[in-house]
Amino acid sequence: MGKSFDILLFIIIILSIVLVMLESIKSFDAKYHDYLYTAEWVITVFFTIEYIARIISIKKPLKYIFSFYGIVDLFSTIPLYLSFFFAGSQVFLAVRALRLLRVFRILKLVRFMGEASQLKEAIKSSRAKIAVFIYTVLILSVIMGTVMYLIEGAEAGFTSIPRSIYWTIVTLTTVGYGDIAPVTSVGQIIAAIIMILGYGIIAVPTGIVTVEFAKQGSTANKKDKNVKEIHTNTQSCPHCTAENHQDNAKFCYECGNYLNEH
Amino acid sequence: MGKSFDILLFIIIILSIVLVMLESIKSFDAKYHDYLYTAEWVITVFFTIEYIARIISIKKPLKYIFSFYGIVDLFSTIPLYLSFFFAGSQVFLAVRALRLLRVFRILKLVRFMGEASQLKEAIKSSRAKIAVFIYTVLILSVIMGTVMYLIEGAEAGFTSIPRSIYWTIVTLTTVGYGDIAPVTSVGQIIAAIIMILGYGIIAVPTGIVTVEFAKQGSTANKKDKNVKEIHTNTQSCPHCTAENHQDNAKFCYECGNYLNEH
Amino acid sequence: MGKSFDILLFIIIILSIVLVMLESIKSFDAKYHDYLYTAEWVITVFFTIEYIARIISIKKPLKYIFSFYGIVDLFSTIPLYLSFFFAGSQVFLAVRALRLLRVFRILKLVRFMGEASQLKEAIKSSRAKIAVFIYTVLILSVIMGTVMYLIEGAEAGFTSIPRSIYWTIVTLTTVGYGDIAPVTSVGQIIAAIIMILGYGIIAVPTGIVTVEFAKQGSTANKKDKNVKEIHTNTQSCPHCTAENHQDNAKFCYECGNYLNEH
Amino acid sequence: MGKSFDILLFIIIILSIVLVMLESIKSFDAKYHDYLYTAEWVITVFFTIEYIARIISIKKPLKYIFSFYGIVDLFSTIPLYLSFFFAGSQVFLAVRALRLLRVFRILKLVRFMGEASQLKEAIKSSRAKIAVFIYTVLILSVIMGTVMYLIEGAEAGFTSIPRSIYWTIVTLTTVGYGDIAPVTSVGQIIAAIIMILGYGIIAVPTGIVTVEFAKQGSTANKKDKNVKEIHTNTQSCPHCTAENHQDNAKFCYECGNYLNEH
Repeated sequence: MGKSFDILLFIIIILSIVLVMLESIKSFDAKYHDYLYTAEWVITVFFTIEYIARIISIKKPLKYIFSFYGIVDLFSTIPLYLSFFFAGSQVFLAVRALRLLRVFRILKLVRFMGEASQLKEAIKSSRAKIAVFIYTVLILSVIMGTVMYLIEGAEAGFTSIPRSIYWTIVTLTTVGYGDIAPVTSVGQIIAAIIMILGYGIIAVPTGIVTVEFAKQGSTANKKDKNVKEIHTNTQSCPHCTAENHQDNAKFCYECGNYLNEH
Repeated sequence: MGKSFDILLFIIIILSIVLVMLESIKSFDAKYHDYLYTAEWVITVFFTIEYIARIISIKKPLKYIFSFYGIVDLFSTIPLYLSFFFAGSQVFLAVRALRLLRVFRILKLVRFMGEASQLKEAIKSSRAKIAVFIYTVLILSVIMGTVMYLIEGAEAGFTSIPRSIYWTIVTLTTVGYGDIAPVTSVGQIIAAIIMILGYGIIAVPTGIVTVEFAKQGSTANKKDKNVKEIHTNTQSCPHCTAENHQDNAKFCYECGNYLNEH
Repeated sequence: MGKSFDILLFIIIILSIVLVMLESIKSFDAKYHDYLYTAEWVITVFFTIEYIARIISIKKPLKYIFSFYGIVDLFSTIPLYLSFFFAGSQVFLAVRALRLLRVFRILKLVRFMGEASQLKEAIKSSRAKIAVFIYTVLILSVIMGTVMYLIEGAEAGFTSIPRSIYWTIVTLTTVGYGDIAPVTSVGQIIAAIIMILGYGIIAVPTGIVTVEFAKQGSTANKKDKNVKEIHTNTQSCPHCTAENHQDNAKFCYECGNYLNEH
Repeated sequence: MGKSFDILLFIIIILSIVLVMLESIKSFDAKYHDYLYTAEWVITVFFTIEYIARIISIKKPLKYIFSFYGIVDLFSTIPLYLSFFFAGSQVFLAVRALRLLRVFRILKLVRFMGEASQLKEAIKSSRAKIAVFIYTVLILSVIMGTVMYLIEGAEAGFTSIPRSIYWTIVTLTTVGYGDIAPVTSVGQIIAAIIMILGYGIIAVPTGIVTVEFAKQGSTANKKDKNVKEIHTNTQSCPHCTAENHQDNAKFCYECGNYLNEH
């Protein structure tokens, strides 16, 4: 039952995000404003009930209210209520997009988390290399940005040093919008050098991640036997607010109390 | 003989695709419309004959007709006929591009398939990692897209949240069209962060694929001895429609019946 | 002496390429046309003398004349002479850029060649994987290009299927000029999918090359002891036209004749 | 105390860089010019005092003055003084951005340097591969650039060969500004080939770096035990100007003299 409620919650959150997106499209909002508004009301009421139900069913409600997901839940609920008192509904519209964060809790399936934590592990163990990498990118951007500002000047779109730095990052990461582009010969030569540098620098994070993945692959082989996939849901223990109980759990793994007592 | 027919079929398919492309170029079509139309007729007739011949020569025609390649063959044949009854020939024009899928059957050479299936294997065994990766990209796009929508607004081209999300994906993948580009300082700072993130995230699929390739390389060394390259063609068994017979096969490897009985 | 002549030749070739570039800049050519023209004459005369000297000093001139570098040398020499007889000097201008190919011969230093041939080896041994990769990119481009042509149409710049295919390649390779960009919602969603695909596909060549490099690295360790760096030059044996003699060689390694007999 | 001074210096340098950036934004400078100017004066005075203090406290001041960081320190100090005598303050503005280089000295923490030197090692040991790679990119750019110049011509933005080469590098590195883009069919086909080439070539530096990282990873395991993290600061020995003393060092590791004698 905890599982099927999670699936319902998941669908409503996704629906709510889709509503936010549709509402942001002016032409669509103009046509179907009433439908969107009604749907938003239904979802807000649902979230309100769910929020209150969570607080009631938990023994230590304060712990939940001030937890990360408790705050996310609150912020997912209130935007519509606030828009009564304040103008600028645009901002509240966007706050509703934060509901997406709630999806994380639901998707906390062991399998995915296992992979994600492997990624996290990879990032963690090459923290220093990544720091050197980002530091190099930033220093290069500041120096090259300043140089390009002096060479190109305002006509080519390099109106200030921060803007030049922005352009350098756009170029170094090989994004290349083209809203700002060098026009002088010297500027284009330096741009070409930045590009080839960026082309090479892109190799650094790739190298880091690949080596970490390769390492984990060889250690994973040894550990694999003791890990099992366990499906969990977002039901929280009414006694201690611990989450991620197994789908068929009867007692809280944290405090040992009975889970479905009501 | 099966082989040489395959080569003829291959050439005609490629020719047919080229015709579709040329027809879509307005100026070219205006000049040589009659030639293109005649050529299309010749190819359609050829495909019709081939389709009928396949059905006749096969013992279980229904199995072929409703198979994947049977449907592709049918759709490759009928567009021109349909354009008699319906307007909107543009859509039928494009359906003809589906003929390209027929090429897959012909190119089903063991060597390439071996490599392709190795790629498929690599993708399959790192499915979970890829899912986490795509999930991260999408979540990042939705959140960053909403933030940029609030910051930049309609003047800079961020007219709606879906459009902002589109922009975020364009930036995160380092494509960077420049049709939408941030103009405010805060927007450009966030854009720069998205770029550097994208620069790092690109490392993840690369790491996955490299590690998988490396694994396969070391296991491939052991298997290599028992694999041989066998050249096959698209001739289908008239009894059971099995395909990919060896070039000089006399009996169907699936049902044991004689292949070239007519 | 062979070495120092090579360095002189190298400088003149680079100078000649720079001249071609400068000449192509309209404003620069207008100002300094006479200087550029004179310099081009001096270089042409030098190349002519060098070409004749090579033919004279070699015992089998025909073998040299019809060799790859013999033809490159001839084409490096004649553009200016041809511009007397024909108009369209623009084309001849560009032919002069081919002189760059001559640099290859001079740079045929053992060290670089060793690395280059290692790269070549890597490409060769993963030929099949690369073929599957390019094949996938092309098929994807044709199908996605056709789909985008139908969805977006001429207003967004997708005026014909070949142009749509061009756009798809621009997007798939994450280049993203922005001269053509989707404007419809459906088009932008498909574009986003193509980008994420491209983001993933970029991993394939990287994986291939990395694994090959890793393999070569482990085999290179075993071979390294027997390889030495030998500096060579472009002096060709007057008896058999063999090139790449060691800097202080007295006899041809190919035919055993004395090298500097004149 | 040496450490806390370093932190103060670090903050002032970053502040000074931020000032340079703000000053380059015309609208901001117009409003707050006086504040910026005053702040710049305060920083200049601080740097002047620090520069003089360094010279006084060191036994061999000349050695420091003509060292790399000595010159950087001088150039960080004088721009404002020079702007009294010369116009063109814009250039002096940018020279101040060089102060960023001073940050390097302060950040010379063992940990980061260890990683950076590992990167440096990786680059060094694959120097030849990188040279072949850059050489290939440049040759490809020159030849493809010339070809595109001939095919596209001035209308499409390919106004000269250097500009065409610039475009080729923009395309090959997958940056793709779109300020210059091919318009002819042949040009677009060649552009597509360049993109796919670039897509493949990007694999080379990645492969190099990954293999080097993997090598270092396996050798690092052996060395790790004998390396310790030592925190250093920029305090220089008053006797021999040696820097990077440990935070609690009493005697110079270079000349053995007492460090904090004043």
